[in-house]
Amino acid sequence: MSSNSFGKLFTVTTFGESHGPAIGCVIDGCPPGLAIGAEEFRSDLDRRATGRSRYTSQRHEADEVEILSGVYEGRTTGTPIALLIRNTDQRSKDYGDIASSFRPGHADYTYWQKYGIRDPRGGGRSSARETTMRVAAAVIAKKWLAERHGVRVRGYLAQIGEVVPDAFDWDAVGQNPFFWPDAGQVPALETYINALRKSGDSVGARVSVVADGVPPGWGEPIYGKLDGDLASALMSINAVKGVEIGDGFAAVVQHGSEHRDEMSMDGFASNHAGGILGGISSGQPVTASIVLKPTSSILIPGHSVNLAGEPTEVVTKGRHDPCVGIRATPIAEAMMALVLIDHALRHRAQCGDVGVVTPRIP
Amino acid sequence: MSSNSFGKLFTVTTFGESHGPAIGCVIDGCPPGLAIGAEEFRSDLDRRATGRSRYTSQRHEADEVEILSGVYEGRTTGTPIALLIRNTDQRSKDYGDIASSFRPGHADYTYWQKYGIRDPRGGGRSSARETTMRVAAAVIAKKWLAERHGVRVRGYLAQIGEVVPDAFDWDAVGQNPFFWPDAGQVPALETYINALRKSGDSVGARVSVVADGVPPGWGEPIYGKLDGDLASALMSINAVKGVEIGDGFAAVVQHGSEHRDEMSMDGFASNHAGGILGGISSGQPVTASIVLKPTSSILIPGHSVNLAGEPTEVVTKGRHDPCVGIRATPIAEAMMALVLIDHALRHRAQCGDVGVVTPRIP
Amino acid sequence: MSSNSFGKLFTVTTFGESHGPAIGCVIDGCPPGLAIGAEEFRSDLDRRATGRSRYTSQRHEADEVEILSGVYEGRTTGTPIALLIRNTDQRSKDYGDIASSFRPGHADYTYWQKYGIRDPRGGGRSSARETTMRVAAAVIAKKWLAERHGVRVRGYLAQIGEVVPDAFDWDAVGQNPFFWPDAGQVPALETYINALRKSGDSVGARVSVVADGVPPGWGEPIYGKLDGDLASALMSINAVKGVEIGDGFAAVVQHGSEHRDEMSMDGFASNHAGGILGGISSGQPVTASIVLKPTSSILIPGHSVNLAGEPTEVVTKGRHDPCVGIRATPIAEAMMALVLIDHALRHRAQCGDVGVVTPRIP
Amino acid sequence: MSSNSFGKLFTVTTFGESHGPAIGCVIDGCPPGLAIGAEEFRSDLDRRATGRSRYTSQRHEADEVEILSGVYEGRTTGTPIALLIRNTDQRSKDYGDIASSFRPGHADYTYWQKYGIRDPRGGGRSSARETTMRVAAAVIAKKWLAERHGVRVRGYLAQIGEVVPDAFDWDAVGQNPFFWPDAGQVPALETYINALRKSGDSVGARVSVVADGVPPGWGEPIYGKLDGDLASALMSINAVKGVEIGDGFAAVVQHGSEHRDEMSMDGFASNHAGGILGGISSGQPVTASIVLKPTSSILIPGHSVNLAGEPTEVVTKGRHDPCVGIRATPIAEAMMALVLIDHALRHRAQCGDVGVVTPRIP
Repeated sequence: MSSNSFGKLFTVTTFGESHGPAIGCVIDGCPPGLAIGAEEFRSDLDRRATGRSRYTSQRHEADEVEILSGVYEGRTTGTPIALLIRNTDQRSKDYGDIASSFRPGHADYTYWQKYGIRDPRGGGRSSARETTMRVAAAVIAKKWLAERHGVRVRGYLAQIGEVVPDAFDWDAVGQNPFFWPDAGQVPALETYINALRKSGDSVGARVSVVADGVPPGWGEPIYGKLDGDLASALMSINAVKGVEIGDGFAAVVQHGSEHRDEMSMDGFASNHAGGILGGISSGQPVTASIVLKPTSSILIPGHSVNLAGEPTEVVTKGRHDPCVGIRATPIAEAMMALVLIDHALRHRAQCGDVGVVTPRIP
Repeated sequence: MSSNSFGKLFTVTTFGESHGPAIGCVIDGCPPGLAIGAEEFRSDLDRRATGRSRYTSQRHEADEVEILSGVYEGRTTGTPIALLIRNTDQRSKDYGDIASSFRPGHADYTYWQKYGIRDPRGGGRSSARETTMRVAAAVIAKKWLAERHGVRVRGYLAQIGEVVPDAFDWDAVGQNPFFWPDAGQVPALETYINALRKSGDSVGARVSVVADGVPPGWGEPIYGKLDGDLASALMSINAVKGVEIGDGFAAVVQHGSEHRDEMSMDGFASNHAGGILGGISSGQPVTASIVLKPTSSILIPGHSVNLAGEPTEVVTKGRHDPCVGIRATPIAEAMMALVLIDHALRHRAQCGDVGVVTPRIP
Repeated sequence: MSSNSFGKLFTVTTFGESHGPAIGCVIDGCPPGLAIGAEEFRSDLDRRATGRSRYTSQRHEADEVEILSGVYEGRTTGTPIALLIRNTDQRSKDYGDIASSFRPGHADYTYWQKYGIRDPRGGGRSSARETTMRVAAAVIAKKWLAERHGVRVRGYLAQIGEVVPDAFDWDAVGQNPFFWPDAGQVPALETYINALRKSGDSVGARVSVVADGVPPGWGEPIYGKLDGDLASALMSINAVKGVEIGDGFAAVVQHGSEHRDEMSMDGFASNHAGGILGGISSGQPVTASIVLKPTSSILIPGHSVNLAGEPTEVVTKGRHDPCVGIRATPIAEAMMALVLIDHALRHRAQCGDVGVVTPRIP
Repeated sequence: MSSNSFGKLFTVTTFGESHGPAIGCVIDGCPPGLAIGAEEFRSDLDRRATGRSRYTSQRHEADEVEILSGVYEGRTTGTPIALLIRNTDQRSKDYGDIASSFRPGHADYTYWQKYGIRDPRGGGRSSARETTMRVAAAVIAKKWLAERHGVRVRGYLAQIGEVVPDAFDWDAVGQNPFFWPDAGQVPALETYINALRKSGDSVGARVSVVADGVPPGWGEPIYGKLDGDLASALMSINAVKGVEIGDGFAAVVQHGSEHRDEMSMDGFASNHAGGILGGISSGQPVTASIVLKPTSSILIPGHSVNLAGEPTEVVTKGRHDPCVGIRATPIAEAMMALVLIDHALRHRAQCGDVGVVTPRIP
């Protein structure tokens, strides 16, 4: 079953294990004629990369993307685009412990139960290393969305543990290693995370993503709704335990008179809905948030069992990642971009001849 | 595009508009030999039905299910099962207002923008009437899951506005019209909802669903994860704005030492993960929660525009539904059951020969 | 698995058994705004209907199509279109023989082996009655193809037994019950078929279909080629044992200098390829032929086994159909139309912005 | 759209152009635990390879398969298996002519019309080089089918031009470069092909494939029939213009009393049906034949147009392949194996609990 493929019309199939020879993806259905070069993957891959700051984990990968197919003289041809990244930082290690016991909070036990076999090296297929290819594929998606529709997808860290931003500035997001929207808080955040690391523990986080410029009409009721597809896309990111669209869970205590976004020909009065009504984009910014659980690989020992069914203790050695949520920001952007391009194509397929419908709220 | 189909191997395709002649569904891929009769749909359809209590809206539908195909002498044959329900409560009304203006918070505007045409009668395809067929299809799914794997899927109302249960009892859930797990609070809840109705406003809600008995191994990394599929399934329910698995957004402030569920051969020490690790069931109860926005159809007028692009006011006439979240409970159960049977079949397809893997945590 | 659905973007899901209460289909992905009325199905359903002439079998069905959804005020809305036809000619019969033995050349044995249960009444799901819904769905496809692209899909009987047409005239095809392109041969054909019927035997046939007006560019390499999709679509018709595109099997003995269709700006010099190169339409007429085996239900007894594994003899009682190939003509048209509309939408999805490419051969 | 993927449960996605840096595939859904090593691809890739004999074209590729993922310690893990082959024989050439004109009988013109851009080097994506990955993927499929079900898939050249085998011997097939089943005819065949090559022309061919050991029950009515899926699979092979199941087009002139395969508990009396009834395998050998058109790249000039819309002449330089049909034999085997494993898994998904149904004809 093609469960390693994402998207119906802009279909991304990823492959590769954390410590295998390579990771890669095949993008099928990309519109032809889009200019793309291997150098364009650099920026987003760097944003996602582990080891990019001392606040996340310390694996060092060059992440050099090789375009194997689907691009001719710098333009997409409409045939499948294969991207390949060799794994280079697979230092020979003794995986004996990991191979013979199940780390709590990880997928070790469930892969073992499902398949009866697993690649234990660095988590194998369940490693977040796989998300590298999502970010790579989304570079192409983002470019098409921007060129063709003026869509821009951006994310930020909206909460880490108890800490929330006091101010919001998109410019700040790109200027600190936490994707944090409040520049003034960054020093305190560094202190917070360093203390966390020293404690040997980890903490959860919330990441938000916003797409500006999405035209009304994207999304397909009933089981291909834009919010439904965003939900699965974002939930598929490692460590994500929840997804919200617009106000999300805050709506539990809201009243209808507050939540419904009133309309006039000057625009919507608010955006509690997060830019989606009935599963279809409304023309407002599409907004989503996710929660990432605290990483389970910590310096504090945890009880588990081994392959023989005996009790054991599991502990992470060396540096650990005190908040996996931080580097989820570019991954969340990637997933939203992949959902949006897919729905742009799906909308064009069914309703290509509809054109602009009036009245259209700006 | 088959966006009105749900599930890859147990595929449910629904059709029908709120005030069209009928609603229905086609179930493709059901295992053969399952005993099923038309009378078995009654209980869950009644639980979902509008008009079942004076706390939800007042449409009265007989919801008589006709089995059109796929069942021979009381057993499924493996061919597609079509279920049909005639709409009977379509009293002739003047839909003039609804047809010419866009209700805030509804899908009127987005359907119009997407398709350039819409069926305005009762919300057309975007009406929650469609969810009747999900519940009907899930009756078959639930039965197979129970008979074949001992899986039981149950839901309850976990919060309405600011009100949360003080106690929890599964038996209570089935004995009040709110699916509320605390029998002692029911009178107060009635008072609360009546007051809400009199105010002409509505409120949000949270619904939780639990599946007991799910064996380890269901779910397909990376893009067919059990939690990813649950997320889209639950988000596809009308008015849902957020989905959580296990602890969900509470994990933002949790530490890794708290969240990761330690293991022993006596079982897991906790279930923060909600029974899913790496997208695959762990053998623990699978738990999910959703938030439903407050219904937008209220007695309080709202600003909008009409087809001519002129400002207008929209107001719901007659009785309204002060909390759409209540009747979402059986729908959420249905969606979880549909996801689970799909993954049961998917797991059997790929790993049918794996059998029970040791060590298995009870 | 959605194996009762056809098409990726214009998706038709059919349901129903030969002698169940009804047959029907759900069409998902139809472009919005297309005018369609229940009366438009009559012509093609009559062309396909059994009992329409004394040369085919004698079941009499009214085949009244009810549109259950997806159409509002006479136009498609973009939501799923459900069509329903009640089975009316299910005279109470004794199916005892059929239920307890396997007819040679039929699907009785294989359904039994696959599912462990089967609906034996009239062949159940394996009956050609199912093709009624393909023809119905294709009425909508044909109309859109004609209005939007000027595509016309037509079929004819190209051979029956040893008899081939001496002349070809599209006008003749519609004026005799055999879809035969040579009016002068019709009396002889009547004599031939009557003699065949009297002999109690049946014969094979060849049906050809041609689509004029297909623009270049439809079809998706490598596994969604136009000819590949036509092949599965046509092979899925009951009794079909072979599919050819263009010259088909005649190409075994052709030389390259003969087969390749040379080009000039005045057009292609020939159409051996059948309008498809590399899986993509060339702008020439798309041509395909199929072979239909002789019907297995004949008056001559055949050896088989019964449910108990004992030898038995199977014989068809009453009138039989001496050539099932005849009424396959409108079904083959339907399948080609369904393939073409699917690829029209798929091409628009990926390459909507390409427009007319020069040089274009007329 | 995932048109470069084949199979629903054993899903093979191929990528790569004839003269790009590499070709490859991703296999998703492979059952876990299957032993596989890189050396196992050698035999079938050699059988398919161009340049393996002087009777086919002269490209020399090492075709070294690298397993990039999905295999751990020599066994499949259930995660996607990526296979990569670097293109090594891309001698720097002047593709000026090919890039600026459209070869008759090739996909040059249609790719150009579809995408508005094309990779002209060696035919780009439309080259038969892509089929290398089908053969590679099928090595895994064949192994699983053999180990798990005792299925064996074999093909042979059944006709080349007017030449048909006088005798049939499976052993002979593997001992000559033509996959010809009559050893005595091989010298004459060499003479025939050499003469053809000298003439500068090419000829068509027929290839047959047989799968022994397929159990009854594989195949999914109505649109996932085993014969329907075989038809699209085989038609997707480059140059194929027709597909037959069992007797195929010979059935046009057959009578029902001859064609239907009578049954007894000793077996079927014949196999005109080719092992498939109603789209489901019957337990008899599954047989299919295809026709491959004569290659269009010949030494005889052909009329065409160039990018500017001017008339031009196209001629192949150097050695050409006088019959592309020969090396289609292992490719046809590969496609049948891929269809069969997909249906094995699909059958297990829906009917896994049916088991052996009685009476079963041996």
